[in-house]
Amino acid sequence: MTDSIELGCPGDFHVHLRDGDMKNLVTPTIREGGVSVVYVMPNLVPPLIDPEVVLEYKKSLQKLSPKTTFLMSLYLSPKITPEVVEQAKKAGITGIKCYPAGVTTNSDHGVSSYEPFYPTFAAMEKHNMILNLHGECPSGHGIHVLNAEEKFLPTLKDLHQRFPKLRIILEHCTSEAAINAVLECGDNVAATITAHHLYLIVDNWGGNAHNFCKPVAKLPADRDALIKAATSGNPKFFFGSDSAPHPVKNKAKASGAAAGVFTQAYAIPYVAEVFEQVGKLDYLKGFVTDFGKKFYGISDDDLVDKSTVTLVKSTQVVETSLTSAALTDGDAVIPFRAGEKLKWSVTWS
Amino acid sequence: MTDSIELGCPGDFHVHLRDGDMKNLVTPTIREGGVSVVYVMPNLVPPLIDPEVVLEYKKSLQKLSPKTTFLMSLYLSPKITPEVVEQAKKAGITGIKCYPAGVTTNSDHGVSSYEPFYPTFAAMEKHNMILNLHGECPSGHGIHVLNAEEKFLPTLKDLHQRFPKLRIILEHCTSEAAINAVLECGDNVAATITAHHLYLIVDNWGGNAHNFCKPVAKLPADRDALIKAATSGNPKFFFGSDSAPHPVKNKAKASGAAAGVFTQAYAIPYVAEVFEQVGKLDYLKGFVTDFGKKFYGISDDDLVDKSTVTLVKSTQVVETSLTSAALTDGDAVIPFRAGEKLKWSVTWS
Repeated sequence: MTDSIELGCPGDFHVHLRDGDMKNLVTPTIREGGVSVVYVMPNLVPPLIDPEVVLEYKKSLQKLSPKTTFLMSLYLSPKITPEVVEQAKKAGITGIKCYPAGVTTNSDHGVSSYEPFYPTFAAMEKHNMILNLHGECPSGHGIHVLNAEEKFLPTLKDLHQRFPKLRIILEHCTSEAAINAVLECGDNVAATITAHHLYLIVDNWGGNAHNFCKPVAKLPADRDALIKAATSGNPKFFFGSDSAPHPVKNKAKASGAAAGVFTQAYAIPYVAEVFEQVGKLDYLKGFVTDFGKKFYGISDDDLVDKSTVTLVKSTQVVETSLTSAALTDGDAVIPFRAGEKLKWSVTWS
Repeated sequence: MTDSIELGCPGDFHVHLRDGDMKNLVTPTIREGGVSVVYVMPNLVPPLIDPEVVLEYKKSLQKLSPKTTFLMSLYLSPKITPEVVEQAKKAGITGIKCYPAGVTTNSDHGVSSYEPFYPTFAAMEKHNMILNLHGECPSGHGIHVLNAEEKFLPTLKDLHQRFPKLRIILEHCTSEAAINAVLECGDNVAATITAHHLYLIVDNWGGNAHNFCKPVAKLPADRDALIKAATSGNPKFFFGSDSAPHPVKNKAKASGAAAGVFTQAYAIPYVAEVFEQVGKLDYLKGFVTDFGKKFYGISDDDLVDKSTVTLVKSTQVVETSLTSAALTDGDAVIPFRAGEKLKWSVTWS
């Protein structure tokens, strides 16, 4: 029986670190969760559309977690012209995140139509910047939260066909249909899979706002397809937690509860447990360490700190809440599977 | 343009009136919602399995709303033998509600297998008592909240075939598949449809516990099938609100929020608005007044009060909360569509 696993320098290629008090609370948990390098989402309020502001934001994150490597992104908006793409590339920004308008937290400034952005996508292709897609169509006209991702897949395929050299990531994919679409595309299309979507189905978020996120967790067959893809050893699929902290007061609401599951502080242990359940621990390092860095073109030489993670078979209990003196109203963030036992723990060396 | 509709003495054939403080709060709202006769669910804590206790409960309800006609039910459990069925019939109890174990509020004492109850069903058939089915299979083994009702339909058809004279109601049906199954059965099988399922889809209950109920609201095509059935003039489909009050503290929770939508206080106006939207107000009286009473074998002569309802085109705003000095912790119940405008109001004469 395996009781320790060398993971090298793992990556989490989809994190929400927020701003202000919440940033202070969650940024240090990246390393607690066993992650060395993160790709940071730009959906702050206001969204990150200015490369200079992104660099300032990165500095503040680096201060909070000096050993973490932060890869940064811009928020796709009409302000992101081909000139801004070039400027962003020069500033060391890695990619651009595209939110359809209105589908998730702070997506009000998102995209309604993709065509106006073709020149931007062409510039990204030229400058080798990653396009991160939140792959959902807004609800209405027969589209609902359960088929919103599937309805987006023709757009994914269309963008891939128009910009075949553009590296595209379908973020936090949740459905069997999405897995199949990514498999059908060429090598420049990959997908991230979260920890929580390896656990959850539709039953788990009704009346349970802590498990409610966008895209929503779907049917058992979809979850099984995600587990199969994540543990397949196919480098098109790699880890992006979409860890999305919200204060309890925005979760414990009878209407309008915020969407997002907080997994940062236990990211790798959550994933390891699923890999172990299906007897695929051998493929864990590929999913959490190798494939994401390869797609992003990162080597360990690029990391600000080269400490490595060993996952050890040692039970830990998920905290029932993360608190911070800095969070207003004494509010807290409740992690995924709060209070439950995890079989694996993280050590750094 | 219609601006008033004579509805006679409407019925709501599926209500949860609870016990204690909550009973005191919600029972008087039956008439505010435009309802003269109700069929009362037995899922109290402990469940109503003793005819004597049911009669005591009925007395307490009658005291709270003297003009309402209360039709009473027992909770199907191993204690409900053929002898108890006969005793219940003599005591004036109308039917027996069958909850599959663990699917909804206070269903822990419910049924896991139907076969042990065949003698009870045979006695109900003989004594002309109604069988009310909560038509869901428990989740697991490929069953989830979205197909739990559809997976139950073979059981409905099987029971109908075994006991063809037993009058069966598939309660609060939520899916196109359920509508079709009820249509395929003979005249002794009917279905209730709630007000809120004429409005809601899966999108509406994610992060919105006030819209979360069991069975959950499903896809747009399902909601459309419910509207079509309710407004079709087919007497197999009639109104049962499944109004299910919970104190706000049990709704505004980040995990384990209670399932149930409270519609009692505005029951008929909610329904009328949907009928008007699809141009079927002519069929409203059939759905809310005639078909249910006919299936239950009730005439207006059986009612404790013969006042009638006129629905008038007069805007009212749904209260943002119902409070009662009697509810502990100053807690409240939030009605469906709280704070929104309704086009119709109830008057009694």
